[in-house]
Amino acid sequence: MIKIVIDAMGGDYAPEEQVKGAIEALNKDKDFAVVLAGDEEKLKAELAKYEFDPSRVEIVHAPDVITGDDVPTKAVREKKNSSTVAAFRVLKEGGADGLVSSGATGAVLAAGIMVLGRIKGISRPALCPAIPNLRGDQTLLCDCGANLECKSINLAHFAIMATAYAQAVYGIEKPKVGLLNNGTEDHKGDLVHQEANALLKTMDCIDYYGNVEGRDIMLNTDIDIVVADGYTGNIALKAVEGCAKTMGNLMKKAFTKNLFTKLRSALVYDVIKGFKSSMDYEIMGGSMFLGLKKAVVKGHGNSKARGFCACVLQAVNAVRGNMVEKISEMLEKIDAASIAPPASSEEEK
Amino acid sequence: MIKIVIDAMGGDYAPEEQVKGAIEALNKDKDFAVVLAGDEEKLKAELAKYEFDPSRVEIVHAPDVITGDDVPTKAVREKKNSSTVAAFRVLKEGGADGLVSSGATGAVLAAGIMVLGRIKGISRPALCPAIPNLRGDQTLLCDCGANLECKSINLAHFAIMATAYAQAVYGIEKPKVGLLNNGTEDHKGDLVHQEANALLKTMDCIDYYGNVEGRDIMLNTDIDIVVADGYTGNIALKAVEGCAKTMGNLMKKAFTKNLFTKLRSALVYDVIKGFKSSMDYEIMGGSMFLGLKKAVVKGHGNSKARGFCACVLQAVNAVRGNMVEKISEMLEKIDAASIAPPASSEEEK
Repeated sequence: MIKIVIDAMGGDYAPEEQVKGAIEALNKDKDFAVVLAGDEEKLKAELAKYEFDPSRVEIVHAPDVITGDDVPTKAVREKKNSSTVAAFRVLKEGGADGLVSSGATGAVLAAGIMVLGRIKGISRPALCPAIPNLRGDQTLLCDCGANLECKSINLAHFAIMATAYAQAVYGIEKPKVGLLNNGTEDHKGDLVHQEANALLKTMDCIDYYGNVEGRDIMLNTDIDIVVADGYTGNIALKAVEGCAKTMGNLMKKAFTKNLFTKLRSALVYDVIKGFKSSMDYEIMGGSMFLGLKKAVVKGHGNSKARGFCACVLQAVNAVRGNMVEKISEMLEKIDAASIAPPASSEEEK
Repeated sequence: MIKIVIDAMGGDYAPEEQVKGAIEALNKDKDFAVVLAGDEEKLKAELAKYEFDPSRVEIVHAPDVITGDDVPTKAVREKKNSSTVAAFRVLKEGGADGLVSSGATGAVLAAGIMVLGRIKGISRPALCPAIPNLRGDQTLLCDCGANLECKSINLAHFAIMATAYAQAVYGIEKPKVGLLNNGTEDHKGDLVHQEANALLKTMDCIDYYGNVEGRDIMLNTDIDIVVADGYTGNIALKAVEGCAKTMGNLMKKAFTKNLFTKLRSALVYDVIKGFKSSMDYEIMGGSMFLGLKKAVVKGHGNSKARGFCACVLQAVNAVRGNMVEKISEMLEKIDAASIAPPASSEEEK
């Protein structure tokens, strides 16, 4: 049976919402089990609130917490009894097939690389969130912050990893991949992006669409994946979040300005609610941390049970869909010659 | 009297909407005049549709048009009779104090630098659009596409230019400036952004807030200006546009899904309308092209009269508020030592 290890102490509302979310996931999908890493006593107290099949829940005692104030690599080395490090240790040692954490991003990235390790051939693992789009489902944005500066070969790897993710978790047979750039023409962007655009065109294992612009992330219904260097991807992701929140707030304001509109607001409440849920980051789950030896999902720090539950199911589906194996296969299939990195990426050949 | 020269043939709906917008602007502000550069016969035919004071409208015959397919620098050198080049020539030769164009962006940037010229001390002029924000007014984003790669000194100049723009056009005495980065801490971003953050802190002529993230562009009500390299700014701007359009479309869909919601949709029509207008790019006017010897406004290519009118008034206000002079003064006031560019920007000292 598939096992998912949970960093139960990571997150603003841990361990309450993490435990609640894990139990919700167990109720939604009957074919997996969880290992909760965290303070045993606290976890038992939380678990006592729910009914569940005890054979599907284990606890690994790890009372320490890594916070956003800790220096990630240092914390991973020194806080061996933190829930984050313990969870990755369970994963590494075969006690689980996938991991979910809403802990500090830096610590999750560091523990992923230092404790679990990368897939052979991948030098830069990447964070890949799912962004709601006009089509009504999700566009994957890879990378969005794990790698500040990238070479073209890294961007090619992001395309491969996100393709395997879209196939395994979302069941998209031939996901369409765009490269985030400041225009659609081939000459757009700096040298790295020009090289990456040329490289992606040669790769048979992905379905390449071409350069895309910032507006395509949500608006272009022909693409499933947007590949970006981590710096630009991070800014695009947050720009979109800020815009969605601002529009949500302004809409609320417009509807509650006076009593008359308040009345009408009640009438349209469920329409607004439906609209808001189609833009809801929580139901989109967390960011897949791609390029590691097993499936790792990074949930929002402020995840509540509903969002965390989505993250757990995402991890289950990634394991079930053989995401990591798919990435390895695609890397092997690539004609080494065709993807030989250009001069500027020489060292990573 | 202030004179604004209009590239009347530039834009998807030129010259109809450009002439209409110019006349609207003349009716809204009685204290300026326009020079229309374009095909004299066509312009006269358009003008015949409106009543206006003929002493406030001149025509400069320039029948050619530069399109998006032209190579900008080549077109500016060769198409001397294009409305864009003619308009910039009028501006350069003192026949006008400001310029508005909805023509091809590349051509406007090229003509601005090649025909009109830069302010002394500014090596990189920048495009600065106004983005609607949560506060209900605008946040200026500088640069958003004129400069792909920037040095820290360029980012410092963007801060100065946008500050002068906010003071002159929006009457903000001490506009607050943020630097777009992938996090708020001082160590965030690449070397250029770290240098720029350090440099901006030393500058007395601007009110520096610190690093800001993508979400702050619309959501942070404490800032008036976001400074960015042109590549990242371009992607952030378009990401926000894509998100706003997607949300607008999804909202419309939610309201027209069935007859019952259609009925309610009619009831809430004016609320939605009010909401949409608060997010309307048209009423925000165009992008100020900062760093040139005179005020230049770049309107959207698909500007209609209402949007173009806003651009013309923006140019008038920039002239009236002495925007260009303010930029020069701020550049002079800067203690040369304090803003000495770091090693990586050596050549532009």
